[in-house]
Amino acid sequence: MYKINENYLKLPGSYLFSTIGKKVREYSEANPDREIIRLGIGDVTQPIAPAIIQAMHKAVDEMGVQESFRGYAPDLGYEFLRNAISECDYKARGCEIAADEIFVSDGAKCDSGNIQEIFSVDNKIAVCDPVYPVYVDTNVMAGRTGTYNPDTGMWSDVIYMPCTMENGFSPDLPAETPDIIYLCFPNNPTGSTITKDRLQEWVDYANQSGAVIIYDAAYEAYIAEDDVPHSIYECEGARTCAIELKSFSKNAGFTGVRLGYTVIPKELKCGDVSLHALWARRHGTKYNGAPYIVQRAGEAVYSAEGKKQLKAQVAYYMNNAKVIYEGLKSAGYTVSGGVNAPYIWLKTPEKMTSWEFFDFLLERANVVGTPGSGFGPSGEGYFRLTAFGTYENTAKAIERIKAL
Amino acid sequence: MYKINENYLKLPGSYLFSTIGKKVREYSEANPDREIIRLGIGDVTQPIAPAIIQAMHKAVDEMGVQESFRGYAPDLGYEFLRNAISECDYKARGCEIAADEIFVSDGAKCDSGNIQEIFSVDNKIAVCDPVYPVYVDTNVMAGRTGTYNPDTGMWSDVIYMPCTMENGFSPDLPAETPDIIYLCFPNNPTGSTITKDRLQEWVDYANQSGAVIIYDAAYEAYIAEDDVPHSIYECEGARTCAIELKSFSKNAGFTGVRLGYTVIPKELKCGDVSLHALWARRHGTKYNGAPYIVQRAGEAVYSAEGKKQLKAQVAYYMNNAKVIYEGLKSAGYTVSGGVNAPYIWLKTPEKMTSWEFFDFLLERANVVGTPGSGFGPSGEGYFRLTAFGTYENTAKAIERIKAL
Repeated sequence: MYKINENYLKLPGSYLFSTIGKKVREYSEANPDREIIRLGIGDVTQPIAPAIIQAMHKAVDEMGVQESFRGYAPDLGYEFLRNAISECDYKARGCEIAADEIFVSDGAKCDSGNIQEIFSVDNKIAVCDPVYPVYVDTNVMAGRTGTYNPDTGMWSDVIYMPCTMENGFSPDLPAETPDIIYLCFPNNPTGSTITKDRLQEWVDYANQSGAVIIYDAAYEAYIAEDDVPHSIYECEGARTCAIELKSFSKNAGFTGVRLGYTVIPKELKCGDVSLHALWARRHGTKYNGAPYIVQRAGEAVYSAEGKKQLKAQVAYYMNNAKVIYEGLKSAGYTVSGGVNAPYIWLKTPEKMTSWEFFDFLLERANVVGTPGSGFGPSGEGYFRLTAFGTYENTAKAIERIKAL
Repeated sequence: MYKINENYLKLPGSYLFSTIGKKVREYSEANPDREIIRLGIGDVTQPIAPAIIQAMHKAVDEMGVQESFRGYAPDLGYEFLRNAISECDYKARGCEIAADEIFVSDGAKCDSGNIQEIFSVDNKIAVCDPVYPVYVDTNVMAGRTGTYNPDTGMWSDVIYMPCTMENGFSPDLPAETPDIIYLCFPNNPTGSTITKDRLQEWVDYANQSGAVIIYDAAYEAYIAEDDVPHSIYECEGARTCAIELKSFSKNAGFTGVRLGYTVIPKELKCGDVSLHALWARRHGTKYNGAPYIVQRAGEAVYSAEGKKQLKAQVAYYMNNAKVIYEGLKSAGYTVSGGVNAPYIWLKTPEKMTSWEFFDFLLERANVVGTPGSGFGPSGEGYFRLTAFGTYENTAKAIERIKAL
């Protein structure tokens, strides 16, 4: 008789955003007359930029003609895209990342979930708390996290690095040495970020302690301040200790187009074993590449027109962030984030729990946000709002919250 | 110090098609004047059908306009696509598969590689021999296969079910009871298939022995004969023992478009645990859906125009199959497959090994095929040619082989 992967049964409840979706659906069905504004899931609302639409039409046409039809893509992704990434995201910033150190994928969620596969089950992971749930959940599925304590909301074999108002939402080096360190800056969910000096400390720590950093830079495009690194490879020594994940979902609105990439420098080795080779093997065995049309869309992100249009798109969302941040502040909320990130992180009022505030906001203002506790125990008492709505909805939502 | 997943190091050599690619590249660089014909990888050559191109253009336009822009897709895939699949691939054939038992993905390779994750590492798998390498390799990566014997080309904890000329390339029920049984019909690589009665025996066997069948029906569109099942759910009792994988790569030429799906019936349970729920959890946690544009392309596959155009495309490839089959036969080769499948499976002449014949064909006829031994020990002495080339190239390749 076959047996299932029992680790799946350890996962408490369902995936955070599925739960939110269910709650909103139920409320909406019970109150069909209410206009609900969604500032919960980090999903974008602006349409794909014209330069990218044009590139996709061209690629679609190519696929319809024998001479230009493309079948299976190269394992790592098309060179035209990997070259553009290498030039614009790395070399232009002084980071030496070669095109063949870049693995094109269908998104950072998949990569951040799959990357743990190339590591032993015996490794101990460290995560910021609160944190994007995918890091922990996928390690639970792999059997790397021990047992769950429902009272604390913590796994016995996970090192939690609290990020709270007290430490400016920037994690301290952990007391116990981890094997795999997940970092995400600008941070999801807190919207806070890290200075280059501080990130350098993490790189040095990883190199000294023999840890590997999985650096999620999905929100890099939202960095506005000067001393905030756009890539971990801006730090010295990162090539021997860090994997970087990037997404096109937030800088180019590709949540429904699906594109991302992972960088593994050739120097990143565990003893004699190159992590680049392991990931290449996984990519080649379990994956068949992002669609040609989507890879051409990705290329257009780096065109002159594309860059200009996307800069405007990011500015649009960052204006929303400002509206949320300042609106909540003027209403007396304690808020952070929103300066180098599209997320605003607020303290729930009157000692409400995160889910109490979720229900309160849904029912009283018909606004959907994300409960901070869904991101980990230290997120309890906090709440996330995203700047990815339309300006009109964002402004309306903030007016409703202010009126409560 | 972090540790890697040591199972990866057990994998012998690189993924089959990467090795072929490397050999061809090297030969081509050394002999730039030679025109190489590729009948190796199962990659298609015909352009995407007009009805699908049209649907993709429309979807691209929708993504460029605020009102019709789509962000994250629903976890299981868009209903318009799941409904079309349920109606056309299942209900029209008398199989009761509901839309919410269908999980849309970016291809059958990914699904066939990922599906093992929801099962315990302690399960024992059974595979046909020869077999599509992804089934075994992904189980090696998960640590489910024991140790590799380079002399036999076999893993200690895998049950091999030889498919050779002697048993008509149809596996016998294994002597040792497996937990997970991988079946693929029409078969890759042998091009052979299975009758409905014979498949029913497998379903009964699985239900009686408590095994689960992972049924890969990627080549279903090539079935020409009447008593060959298009889906395992045509067999009674399959809903309690079988998962089915389907691809759009071969019936609609989506190797570069990327779309597939997995069916898990709600009745499929291990004790109290629904496999549907486990896979839904994996899908929701590690995956973000196929691109909207691609799901619309998939929908067009089931439109009246799409069906008509794809029927012609399949007929085009099946004519190639006939050219290969009859050409090789007339040249004295022992051949099988090619009737209900786009693959022709031939016995290498003069006791050449599969790789010897690969080199022979590459160097002497400049034709690329796939060595049977790359698919497993019982594939030694066999060779696969695909019907997915253009007619002109296929005819030319066969003329060259006949002239040897």
